[in-house]
Amino acid sequence: MSKLCLKIAMSLDGFVAGPNQSVANPLGVGGMRLHEWAFELAAFRAMHGMEGGVVNESTPVIENHFANIGATVMGRNMFGGHPGPWDPKNPWSGWWGVNPPYHHPVFVLTHHARKPLKLEGGTTFTFVTAGIESALDLAKRAAGKKDVSLGGGAKAAQQYLAAGLVDEMQLHVVPTLLGSGERLFDGVGDDLHGLELVRTIAARKVTHLEFAKR
Amino acid sequence: MSKLCLKIAMSLDGFVAGPNQSVANPLGVGGMRLHEWAFELAAFRAMHGMEGGVVNESTPVIENHFANIGATVMGRNMFGGHPGPWDPKNPWSGWWGVNPPYHHPVFVLTHHARKPLKLEGGTTFTFVTAGIESALDLAKRAAGKKDVSLGGGAKAAQQYLAAGLVDEMQLHVVPTLLGSGERLFDGVGDDLHGLELVRTIAARKVTHLEFAKR
Repeated sequence: MSKLCLKIAMSLDGFVAGPNQSVANPLGVGGMRLHEWAFELAAFRAMHGMEGGVVNESTPVIENHFANIGATVMGRNMFGGHPGPWDPKNPWSGWWGVNPPYHHPVFVLTHHARKPLKLEGGTTFTFVTAGIESALDLAKRAAGKKDVSLGGGAKAAQQYLAAGLVDEMQLHVVPTLLGSGERLFDGVGDDLHGLELVRTIAARKVTHLEFAKR
Repeated sequence: MSKLCLKIAMSLDGFVAGPNQSVANPLGVGGMRLHEWAFELAAFRAMHGMEGGVVNESTPVIENHFANIGATVMGRNMFGGHPGPWDPKNPWSGWWGVNPPYHHPVFVLTHHARKPLKLEGGTTFTFVTAGIESALDLAKRAAGKKDVSLGGGAKAAQQYLAAGLVDEMQLHVVPTLLGSGERLFDGVGDDLHGLELVRTIAARKVTHLEFAKR
């Protein structure tokens, strides 16, 4: 059975993006600080065609980020561009250029219908207006025997967490404060719906907390 | 030089106490869940005169909780009882009975003057109305060559963190959600004032993140 896996970086004060997100600053003010632990890794740099970098406890976390993932679900805000209806003359096609790093089907939660967007390297964005369960169902079918990644952002993650639909969660807890922005657990309540801590990986600049349903 | 050390348990969503704190429920609804990892430890049980319990990665954390601590600073809400002026006929004397577990001088931040309260076992509560720096100064003098513990609650911790006066912080990150209550980092901003992650201790039901100024 295909699982839904959330892997996301969060500050000590619970934010997964900083304030004032925009096309120029998609992670919000300070949001890039949540990902610096990854940028310095040789494994991350190699994935993006760069040489050098370090090897540490986070290396397998990055190497396994897309392991056994056959499809991704993400929110409209993560796909990005702007809120509201798509611009028919100049439709936003994501942050990732002509060859996005997914290389599998991606399902985007939106209130605004749109035809699928097929890009290079095996990534097709399908826009789903029928809600989170519908998007998850489509993604699981597309993933086949593999799992589904929940890409974010905060609001999409909150909805799947509150519905108890997340099977595995890997939190990259970054020892910094953002002070404001988008909180991962806002509105989720006081219940992790059976997700239990199963492993902790300690690195110098991040702590990876892994949760699963037992 | 005496250091100010904050050791506090926090939920994944950043709360150090649940909602609706009261005399009957001093940690707020669900707040007790932040401390279950400690209650099951043999080291904790022995400190409170109980037998049995387990030994795990958290054992040295509990054993060292009061190591080298010569005084404590805490907020009025942590000392507890009720907000506002003290009741002259029946003054609140803390949660801890006639022999509190501190066994050293404790300085309570309050807006309401009161004479010191001397209890058994070496614990004297001194009530400080002149602000956080004054309380810290008194505590450091009382601690001598030892360090000062910042006992909480949230508002006292926030004030010392925002002022950059915390020298060491040990966060017991508990893999649960409280959903609402008192957040540790509310109002602290986007700055840890030089506190850096120096060690992570992973246990089954809690992750201890240790910060220090380098």
